[in-house]
This record gives sequence, structure tokens and C-alpha cells, in this order.
Amino acid sequence: MYKYHIMKNKSSSIILISGLLSVGLANHQNVFAIERVKASKPNFIIILADDMGYGDVGVFGHPTISTPNLDKMASEGQKWTNFYVAAPVCTPSRAGLLTGRLPIRTGMCSEKRRVLFPNSKGGLPEKEVTIASALKTTGYATACIGKWHLGHLPKFAPNSHGFDYYYGIPYSNDMDVKETANYISYVTSPKIDYFNVPLMRNSEVIERPADQTTITKRYTQEATKFIKQNKDKPFFLYLAHSMPHVPLFRSKEFENKSLRGIYGDVIEELDWSVGEILAALKQNGLDKNTFVIFTSDNGPWTVFQDQGGSAGLLTGGKGGTYEGGMREPTIFRWPGTLKPGVIMEMGTTMDLLPTFCKLANVSLPNDRIYDGYDISPVLFGTGKDPRDVVFYYRDVQIFAIRKGNYKAHFRTQPEYGSEVVTVQDPPLLYNLNIDPSERHNVADKHPDIIAEMKIILEKHQASIVSVENQLEK
Amino acid sequence: MYKYHIMKNKSSSIILISGLLSVGLANHQNVFAIERVKASKPNFIIILADDMGYGDVGVFGHPTISTPNLDKMASEGQKWTNFYVAAPVCTPSRAGLLTGRLPIRTGMCSEKRRVLFPNSKGGLPEKEVTIASALKTTGYATACIGKWHLGHLPKFAPNSHGFDYYYGIPYSNDMDVKETANYISYVTSPKIDYFNVPLMRNSEVIERPADQTTITKRYTQEATKFIKQNKDKPFFLYLAHSMPHVPLFRSKEFENKSLRGIYGDVIEELDWSVGEILAALKQNGLDKNTFVIFTSDNGPWTVFQDQGGSAGLLTGGKGGTYEGGMREPTIFRWPGTLKPGVIMEMGTTMDLLPTFCKLANVSLPNDRIYDGYDISPVLFGTGKDPRDVVFYYRDVQIFAIRKGNYKAHFRTQPEYGSEVVTVQDPPLLYNLNIDPSERHNVADKHPDIIAEMKIILEKHQASIVSVENQLEK
Repeated sequence: MYKYHIMKNKSSSIILISGLLSVGLANHQNVFAIERVKASKPNFIIILADDMGYGDVGVFGHPTISTPNLDKMASEGQKWTNFYVAAPVCTPSRAGLLTGRLPIRTGMCSEKRRVLFPNSKGGLPEKEVTIASALKTTGYATACIGKWHLGHLPKFAPNSHGFDYYYGIPYSNDMDVKETANYISYVTSPKIDYFNVPLMRNSEVIERPADQTTITKRYTQEATKFIKQNKDKPFFLYLAHSMPHVPLFRSKEFENKSLRGIYGDVIEELDWSVGEILAALKQNGLDKNTFVIFTSDNGPWTVFQDQGGSAGLLTGGKGGTYEGGMREPTIFRWPGTLKPGVIMEMGTTMDLLPTFCKLANVSLPNDRIYDGYDISPVLFGTGKDPRDVVFYYRDVQIFAIRKGNYKAHFRTQPEYGSEVVTVQDPPLLYNLNIDPSERHNVADKHPDIIAEMKIILEKHQASIVSVENQLEK
Repeated sequence: MYKYHIMKNKSSSIILISGLLSVGLANHQNVFAIERVKASKPNFIIILADDMGYGDVGVFGHPTISTPNLDKMASEGQKWTNFYVAAPVCTPSRAGLLTGRLPIRTGMCSEKRRVLFPNSKGGLPEKEVTIASALKTTGYATACIGKWHLGHLPKFAPNSHGFDYYYGIPYSNDMDVKETANYISYVTSPKIDYFNVPLMRNSEVIERPADQTTITKRYTQEATKFIKQNKDKPFFLYLAHSMPHVPLFRSKEFENKSLRGIYGDVIEELDWSVGEILAALKQNGLDKNTFVIFTSDNGPWTVFQDQGGSAGLLTGGKGGTYEGGMREPTIFRWPGTLKPGVIMEMGTTMDLLPTFCKLANVSLPNDRIYDGYDISPVLFGTGKDPRDVVFYYRDVQIFAIRKGNYKAHFRTQPEYGSEVVTVQDPPLLYNLNIDPSERHNVADKHPDIIAEMKIILEKHQASIVSVENQLEK
């Protein structure tokens, strides 16, 4: 098999010895003896937060949000500090994650309508291959639990895109507001019945409006149930939380729990959920055979002030192409296989599809362009990062490009709420590793890099073929 | 003795069992068997960085500075996210740390000269009690290694303030610049002989100019030597690094090591140094009997751009009274005694003196006001934080007050380089736990809190007695 499987087995053996001994002495649960061996088909879990900022996790620097489960996940796993999404808003970001392709290639971005709305007629085209449909070809059980937002007509729904099971809301939790004139006051002082968002199980609406107070808890219960039900076969679980997208809701147990106010309560419930998922893996003997990824779909929606998150030391937020809009707090965990540490190489959510397919030994159709890379060499420390470039799309336009340390901004618009787009000519240039906050423009010093960026831009644009726009339908 | 000693012994026993077993199996060094028991007199080590920002540590959110030793120290110990210094610049901050008293009470702050300079004639008055002089009364060995900056005339030197041993530079590493007209170019493109800063051992100058390239390494070697020499008696080590204050220097081994450029190299050498200190404790069987604190003296000097640090999600930097100037990345470690976790209660460097004295059973003279509190209840989880208020002094004036969650700014000047002081009337008010970046002024909503802050201000000002100014001498 792969080199890392050998590493994994070695490492497992060592842990097994100390594990068994500590069991006898300290009365721990003997999790190692029941570990199931299905090395050739690891399970995959993606936990996606919605609008959570780079700085909203303890181990990413937040002073008053308590995230012990994520912090522990980071210390046991890999904390990725340069991990990006495909777009700074929901629909295109999720399309990129599930297909490994930039939204411009799937028709899932638009300047007029930045995301899908309840009245939209479009969605992720049927011919697109998702992580779920790819893994299904090799016998994976698949579930999407949470927010979909890639089209709610039947042909675009999760069950039409490779998911055996779906439980969640079809679009954002602030859509279907009952009185659009009251949008701002409704989302900032929310009540469940201000919104008419449906909760679905597969193609059936099971609750409308969805009780968002308990939604994080119920997603978590559905997720742990799915894990238990599928403990004897490989599975892919896509747990896409609706929170902390406004309107903010949390269970009774998390009310006023956080020093950070309601936003902190919501994040702390998500952190609790992560703990439940990891505990379920251990309880079902799947801990060492499951690759878990935690990230967010885009940066914080700061226009909502205390009800929006923080991008930490990064600039900008949701909707914009500064780092705060598209760099996410990301943690990878796969005990015994991934060497714990901080990973500063670049990665994106689009890299998950090719990486998972490599690990599960699945071939992808070769009739299309993928923008993701198999990042196994970085994950397993066996080689160089195949990714050296990140494109920052705002809808259908490239606003910025990162190559290596440098990022050139051709156009800027920091985030939602700052609606003026500024054409940057000459482009702004930042060394992101040295200046992650994008404060000191160094374009004057590096005309060669600017020139190189322009060539990358042209080459990339030449690869884009016009497709039907799904968001304007 | 104290309740936490009982906790400590219990906890040590459990670790001892598993420790001894793992030794036999995994061939680890048997550190537990040689653990020396001197429970009533723990050792204390303060590691102080110079001008390091809140966001410059991995576990405080920096994406490209690699700090594995500090990250591990945080996961094994307590990460304090609301820990402050006594002032946003060097001299008064250090005076506050060592005396447990606000600099306004010791004459160690001034509006005209914000810190001591090579031509200064003043210093920390002889009648002040420092952590070192207090602990000496009960038999502690004491050393100051690094930057002093509390007066360089003999009567103000470390040896006159309770330190048995001193090795370091008497003031900042950018002072004694050979050509003052070239200050900016000298500090940003530094060479050793641009500066004439002396390196001292006790009262003797042993090198001039100090070779700053190897200074972090040599401080570390001196520190580990002191630990080894004093392994059989209680000790207090004050390791006050000169770095990352500009001009930035680091050893050959750290040149171009960090993705964050020279500033990152410097921090990564400090992180290495922390690893060496902790390893020395383990090697000498002192790990479980030594209370180690890592923090910084003030916020980052951001006017130096890439050569200054980052306050992370906090606003402002060195010289100012927004959070970035005075809240520091702080880690407490005392294995087996401190329960690991994230501590969000308030603390300040001034609390170290009373806390250490309580732990070492030392009485302090009662003829003066202390601004520090014994924070043992928070450290050991046995009670409420005795500290509910923080005063933010800019030199001799109070610019802001924090009480509980809220901070009122009466005057603002974000940091060095922004020299305009703005009187805020009405004061600005921020809820720091909810809005750590101080973005959303909530003064309008809380006139009662503003009124309370004014009373706190008046009461505090009534406690201030005029003393001789040491910085203007």
C-alpha cells in the first residue's frame, strides 16, 4: 500500500503496548483491543462551521471562547495555519469543497446573486462529481448532516449528489425570513418563528420552521448515530453546521455559558459537538482509522459586530478576498497516521476530494479540470506541497493570487458591508508569511513578482470555459 | 501547609506509577525517581520577552512563527489570556513586575522620559522590595539574567536589589547607539558595532559592545548553569531576554529558520531557550517543584513593521493603552500542581510578588501599598480571582481602567508612533470579553458603568502619594 500505512502500523504497535499496559493499571477503557482494522479504506469526516473566523478558536488565539475539544484535537493532530476555502461566501465555498473545482467551473458563483436563495432554480449540476459520489463507487456509506446550500430542487439535493442520507437545512438559516423588512432586527434578536427554514430528512420536510435552538445538538446526535451504524464499513460524513451563521441559536445548556456572549455560546456548542464526534469514534473503535477535518466555509461576518466572529490577526472577513475572508481555522486529526504539529504549508478545501480519493484508491473522471491537489505528501511528511498557488475569487472575478509567500491584490473589497470594489493598478503585494495582516505593501520592491503574478492570472483565465450560471437561474 | 500541596502530592503519586512503568518499557529517562522533594519552597522562574506581542506565539494564533516549546508549555500548563503588565513600556513595566507596585508609586515612570536611558541618574529606589530581595530572606538563591533597565548606577543594579548573580545588559539593546542620527537605519539593518551596549557579570563589564548575535544563547546557558548549581536549594531565576526588542539579532543556527523573517527567527530562538530551561529542570529533577512563567514586558513595537511583532486580534501596541500594548501572551507551568487549561481570569505581572511570597511563606513589609494580589485561588482553582480591576497607565496618567468585563478609556493614544493623545469625554467603553479588539463602543448603553469607573479612578488617584521621579534625574 502507501508508505504512510507502514508508518501507521508501526506507530499503532507502539501505542498498543503502552495502551494495554495503562489499561490494566489505570482502569482506562481498552480502546485498542477493539480497534477495527480496515487500513485500506479509512473513514472521512469533514466538520464545517459556517461563518466562523480564523481567530475564533482558543488555539488560533481567541482569549475568551473556550474550545477545549478543538484545542485538544489540534495538539493531537495537525493545526493548519494556511488553509483556504474556494470562495469567501457560502454557496461557492461549499461547491468548491465537495467537487475539488473552483466554483467558476461549475457555474456556482455569480456577481448578481452571490449565493443560492430559497427562490433559486439552480444548483450543483448533476454531472459534477462530489466527494460523496466518488467514495460511493468504492463502497463508502455517505451522509450529509447540516446545511447544504447547493440547490434545493430534488436534482441538486444531497441524495442526488452521492449522499445516502441527508438531515439538515437546504440553505442558510437566515433565509426564509418571514418579513424581509425586518431582516436586521430579526437576525440580531432572533426567534425561531421569525424564519421559515425547513428541516429535512432526505427529501422530506420534517419540521418547519426548523427549531434552530437545538439544531447543533440534533446534527450531532444524527452524526454519532451514523458513525455507530456504519462502524463495520467505510464511511464519509459531511457535517456542515448551520452555526455560527446569524441568526445565532444554541441549546439551553449553552445559554450564557461563554464569556464571549451568544457568539461564544454558539462556538462552544460546536466545540462540544466536536468532542462528541471524537468520543463516538473512540467508543466504536474507529479512532485510528478515521481522518477528521475541522474547518469553516468562509471568514466572519463582522458587520454583525458582537454577533459576528473574529479573523484574529488577519484582515477582512466574509465576502472579501483579504486573508480574513478565505483563510480558515483548520485542524486535521488521524491518530497514529498524521504526525502532530503545526502545518504552515498551503492547502485548500478543494484538496480534500483528490486527497480522499487517493487514500481510498478511487479514480476520478479525467474529462474535467480539478483545482485541488492530493496533499498527502504534506499530511504524511513525505514530500513537497503540490500546491503553490491560491486564487481568491470574489464571485466570477479573481481579486487576488497567492504564489508561495506572496499575494497580489488586483482588486479589493475587504468584506461584506464594504461594498466598494477598488481596482488596484499597480496591484498591492504582501509577503503573507512575514506580514499575515497584509499591512505593508511591498509591490515597489518586487516588480518581477508582480509580472509573474500577471502571467499566472492570464494562464489561469485561459483555462476557464464558460458554463451555465446556476446562481442567476 | 497549603491545600495545593496536598493536591500536588496526590497527583505526583499517580504520575509516578505510570512514569516508572513507561520507563521500563519505552526506555525513557527515569525522571520521577530522582525528583527532589522540597515542597515548602518551590523554585520560581520568570521568563520575560521584550516587546513580544500577544499574537506572536503559535498557541496565541500566529500562523508562521513556530513555537513548539511554548505551545507544549501551554498544553501542559495554563494559558492565561487576560494577563497584563504594569505599563506599556520597558522600565515601568519591569519595575511593576519586580515590586508588585504600580510604577507611579516607585517613581519609575515619567511623561518626559518614558524609560531610563544610558545617561539617566535614577533607578529603582533602594527601599523598594523586589521578588528577589523578598525571597532571599527565606534562603532563596537568586539570579537576574538578561536586560535590567531599572537603573545602572551601582545602588540600583540587580545585586543591590536582592539578586546574588547578574549577567546581562543594563538597559535596552538599542540604546548606546554610536551615531544617534542613524538610529532608524542602525536598528533596522543592525550590526553589532553600531551599538555600544555593555554586557555585565555582576558589577563588571565583560564585553562592550555586547555580541547580541549570541546573546539569547548565552543567557540560556547562564540560566541552565544557575539551575544546575542550585538544584539542592530553592531558587528564583529572572530571565529577562533582550529580544525581540529592535535591533533584532539571533544565533547563526536561527538565521532564516522562520517563515516569519528575522522577527520569527528571534522568537523561535526564544522558544528554543524555553525548551532548554524546561529540559534543564527535568534533567536536574526539579520539574515538579518549579513554577515557570513566560510573558512579555509590553506589546509589539509595530512602527518597525516586519521587525515588530503582532498583537493578534488586539488593538494597538507598545507605548499605548489599548489591549495590544499591555495584554501579554502568558503561560504558567508547574506540572502536578497547576491544573492545565486556559485561564480567562485577570492577572498582572504585579501579582507575581505577592503570589510567590505566599507560596514561599515570606512576609512583606506592611508600610506600603501593593498593587498586586495573591492569585493562588485562580492558579489552584480554589477560589475567586482577587483581582477585578486593572489600571492602564501611560507614564504618570491613567488612560484607562478595566473592571470585570468592561474597560473605560479616558484618554487614548494607540501606540508608539501615534503620538497624539485624545481626551475621551465621554469615555469610550468596551466589553473586553465580548469585544477583545475594542471595536464597538458601548458607552451609551452603560452610563452606570461609566459612573462607577469614575469613582474607581478617583479612589485610586487618592491613594497616590507624590514620590521622587527617577526617570527624569
